[in-house]
Amino acid sequence: MKYSKLFPKTIKQTPKDASLESHKLLYRAGYIRESTAGRYYLLPLGMRVNQKIQKIIKEEMDKAGAQELITPVLHPIELWKETNRTESVGFELMTIKDRSETEFVLGGTAEEMLVDLVRRFQISYKDLPFNLYQFSTKFRDEIRARGGLLRLREFVMKDAYSFDVSEEEFKKEYQNMRKTYSKIFDRMGLKTIIVESDNGYIGGEYCHEFVVESEIGESKFLVNQDLSYAAHEDVAKFIPDKKNLDEKEKPLKEVEAVRGTTMEDGEKLHKLPLWQQIKDVLFVDEKGRFILAIIRGDYEVNEVKLLHLIKSYQLRHASEEEIRQKIHSEPGFISPVGIREIIGKDINLLIIADESLYTIRNAYGGANKKNRDLLNMNINRDFKADIEGDIALAKEGYLAPDGSGPLIVKRGIEVGNIFQLGFHYSSKMADATFIDKDGKPEPYYMGCYGIGLARTMATIVEIYHDDKGIIWPELVAPFQVHLVGLDLEDTKVLEKAEQIYKLLLAQNIEVLFDERIDISAGTKFADADLIGIPLRVVISKKSQEGKLEVKKRDKKETHFLKLDELIRQIQKN
Amino acid sequence: MKYSKLFPKTIKQTPKDASLESHKLLYRAGYIRESTAGRYYLLPLGMRVNQKIQKIIKEEMDKAGAQELITPVLHPIELWKETNRTESVGFELMTIKDRSETEFVLGGTAEEMLVDLVRRFQISYKDLPFNLYQFSTKFRDEIRARGGLLRLREFVMKDAYSFDVSEEEFKKEYQNMRKTYSKIFDRMGLKTIIVESDNGYIGGEYCHEFVVESEIGESKFLVNQDLSYAAHEDVAKFIPDKKNLDEKEKPLKEVEAVRGTTMEDGEKLHKLPLWQQIKDVLFVDEKGRFILAIIRGDYEVNEVKLLHLIKSYQLRHASEEEIRQKIHSEPGFISPVGIREIIGKDINLLIIADESLYTIRNAYGGANKKNRDLLNMNINRDFKADIEGDIALAKEGYLAPDGSGPLIVKRGIEVGNIFQLGFHYSSKMADATFIDKDGKPEPYYMGCYGIGLARTMATIVEIYHDDKGIIWPELVAPFQVHLVGLDLEDTKVLEKAEQIYKLLLAQNIEVLFDERIDISAGTKFADADLIGIPLRVVISKKSQEGKLEVKKRDKKETHFLKLDELIRQIQKN
Repeated sequence: MKYSKLFPKTIKQTPKDASLESHKLLYRAGYIRESTAGRYYLLPLGMRVNQKIQKIIKEEMDKAGAQELITPVLHPIELWKETNRTESVGFELMTIKDRSETEFVLGGTAEEMLVDLVRRFQISYKDLPFNLYQFSTKFRDEIRARGGLLRLREFVMKDAYSFDVSEEEFKKEYQNMRKTYSKIFDRMGLKTIIVESDNGYIGGEYCHEFVVESEIGESKFLVNQDLSYAAHEDVAKFIPDKKNLDEKEKPLKEVEAVRGTTMEDGEKLHKLPLWQQIKDVLFVDEKGRFILAIIRGDYEVNEVKLLHLIKSYQLRHASEEEIRQKIHSEPGFISPVGIREIIGKDINLLIIADESLYTIRNAYGGANKKNRDLLNMNINRDFKADIEGDIALAKEGYLAPDGSGPLIVKRGIEVGNIFQLGFHYSSKMADATFIDKDGKPEPYYMGCYGIGLARTMATIVEIYHDDKGIIWPELVAPFQVHLVGLDLEDTKVLEKAEQIYKLLLAQNIEVLFDERIDISAGTKFADADLIGIPLRVVISKKSQEGKLEVKKRDKKETHFLKLDELIRQIQKN
Repeated sequence: MKYSKLFPKTIKQTPKDASLESHKLLYRAGYIRESTAGRYYLLPLGMRVNQKIQKIIKEEMDKAGAQELITPVLHPIELWKETNRTESVGFELMTIKDRSETEFVLGGTAEEMLVDLVRRFQISYKDLPFNLYQFSTKFRDEIRARGGLLRLREFVMKDAYSFDVSEEEFKKEYQNMRKTYSKIFDRMGLKTIIVESDNGYIGGEYCHEFVVESEIGESKFLVNQDLSYAAHEDVAKFIPDKKNLDEKEKPLKEVEAVRGTTMEDGEKLHKLPLWQQIKDVLFVDEKGRFILAIIRGDYEVNEVKLLHLIKSYQLRHASEEEIRQKIHSEPGFISPVGIREIIGKDINLLIIADESLYTIRNAYGGANKKNRDLLNMNINRDFKADIEGDIALAKEGYLAPDGSGPLIVKRGIEVGNIFQLGFHYSSKMADATFIDKDGKPEPYYMGCYGIGLARTMATIVEIYHDDKGIIWPELVAPFQVHLVGLDLEDTKVLEKAEQIYKLLLAQNIEVLFDERIDISAGTKFADADLIGIPLRVVISKKSQEGKLEVKKRDKKETHFLKLDELIRQIQKN
């Protein structure tokens, strides 16, 4: 490609709202342009990188035995209703009607579409397992698109869906995909941490994110020292430290408590440690149920864990009015003790206790009346929960669940994820079955696996750049060689440069050839640094006979090579 | 790929509504499935063919100097309003609002998107020409989707947009694309005829379709004997034969004419030839103008030509009520003579005369009153048109416009098209300019170029099949070799077959390996014929030592080759 004809050229300005380096550099170097917020053009340079990324993903997915197909972008909304995802999805669905008033969803993920496809066939256990994947445009009506390619409203995702006869077989495929993903990101130069995470609107029981550590990442996760444990904040576990379990249980006592409504007000009044207080948080879920979450005073409720435990998908805090009029309690003084006796008749209340309440004795807290507190509350003696479990938010310094030491907080960019789906879809959708060895229909066991291509590109730039521009890893660079011609007004030099360009092309080497005549060497070098092609090759009238000046983008020193040496070096990689 | 794991397998049934061979065969062999009418899944086999087609297009477009990029699917509707295409498009636009009530068009073509991209840059004459293309999903809310892949509501199109400094430069690119398209279709095994056609909602002045001749095609076009002239029915020209021009003009005469309202009624009553009658057709366009089209009685009005002449985009026939109450004439008796004097004051009437009226003298027809006719009407003596031009529909047997002989009607499938756009978009959209040599902004001269991928796939199948199945041309086949293993319950044969499979793969040959054990030879051969891979290779216990039975899909005879001979033969192609 001749640079003079490349659309577009580099520019010096960055978009006003750009804060991320990947956004600024990809913009300035001419890889991307925004159409509307969260919707981008990939320009010819960006498209080339995108294709390299796609090629790596495709090669590894094919090697792993997956088969590529493609589904329509417009999904019949009936399918999303079958699985209730028109209600439950975390992102806002975009829907559209055609001229005959048929309603469609603009695909955000494609589980229903794949199940709807597979169930049309008489699949037998002999046809399984298979894993079907596509590269397709996805739509998510995010409230806020982030600048650049990190959080988009429209993006190409590689999404794969596996079908197995059993959980046991599925687990092999999950491992297969886990390894495949690590290989994919390795080849692109990305070091990923595999982080347990929440499955959100996808369904299923467990999943993992592939996260590239980065300060600007939106994924907050916790790890232990040697990274053998890594989990997203939403699901991270820890071992609560035991507090006053050596104390004897004392009799429950109600006392006057003229105080404010915060945890600190209780702490000050009773002069007892925060951890000995019971924290009561009252939520309402999407079914209208009241959910009273109780936890040790120094911990916080993790709403994602809570949602899973109660099998709901949406929570909001109860209002003061609801606390008073429906629960007949008092904001800041809620207590699990005796609460069932005072609530309105038609109120559905679920009490969820965090396991941390077993690490304390003689807890204190509200008495469901204004300015009255209870002392010496003990779980199972003074109150019982409907569900006990882990609803605590893990934090830096807490003990890792394997007991290996304190948890460390990290931030990173999620570039891929793998999900166990189990029977989540095959049980909700009719006829999502295969014929087993005994001739009986059985639901298939599923998983799904995603990689966002544009986000991957941006992440590579976040990791690989300096103050001059991008430094592409070789396998994802838009071109292999940036050939810079200088002194091209000298026709001999120009002819020589053209000749080298053609010889490189003849070897199937991808070359961007800066053959502009009226542009200074400084500008050409700055453009080369900004665009970030791994190898810069200069030819000028100063070039010694038969030698080219070669510089790696990530190194300072230049060296001189004959053309055939250069070609050999490139082809070696 | 092992056939046992391929998703899905072949089936015997065809869809109830399938009438096209391409639809039936692609369905039965497992290349495609319909999601909703006009929206298809490409299954793994179909995806492979699609990728081969895409690869050929990409290679030739890149060779021709075009640069690949991609635009978002959702186009801001403001852009389509800038060019008035929200009003003028021939297919129904699909529009959608996001959560912030911003409205988008689901892209049907991307002229506005490309201009909106390019105008963000300070393009100079030095940056031009360039040609930008993409492979992207397009949406058209067709009233009727045709079965199979020939007329879809959602499909991937390669669309390219060229930008030039002048018409002269553009013409070179138009030729370049014309040659590129011919090469692309040649490589796929498709013989195309380049047919002048209508640009429809795209705009611009001329365009050409690449048509593959086929009985089932929707494109009706006319050619001369040696195909040096080929034009779509919508735009085809012809030379009208001269009739009674040797007659002298006679005086205009009004006579009683108690007759019906058809052309035949007039012919019978006056006992004069049909061609001597004037045919008057009254339309109303989208602006509410009345359009009186007049033409020689034996010809028909071509509405597409008429639309271009009057620069409108929609026509409907005037109602009988409108003819009486607005025009104050009479259905079946309309005449251009004196019509301006009788129409309502606020009526905007445009008279368009076909050039064929100059091939007759002393014409007859209505007198704008019931049961009254005029004899001896002559153009420019008795009536004048606002516009004279060619509005006649060409038909089989008419004289080709180059005078080379009679026109012949053909049918075919349009697989690609190239459009001159000129200044159509750059004049309507603000700042769609480049800086010329004198430093002044000038609008760029544009063209656009499309190929539908799925339709191309279906067309190949229409051309290449027999009663047993598909016969893929080599360059677009999903695999190069269909390796059929027989007698695989014999572990020696199985081992040998596996070994050959691996040796072929090691040579980068694409192999579909039918290694099913409990399936008969007949079924395997039928599957191979249906799927249509160009080379079938059989290994069985009857295989002579070291020899494989090889059969081309399009030939009857089999021959026997050693593995290395087979590999050499494949790699030669």
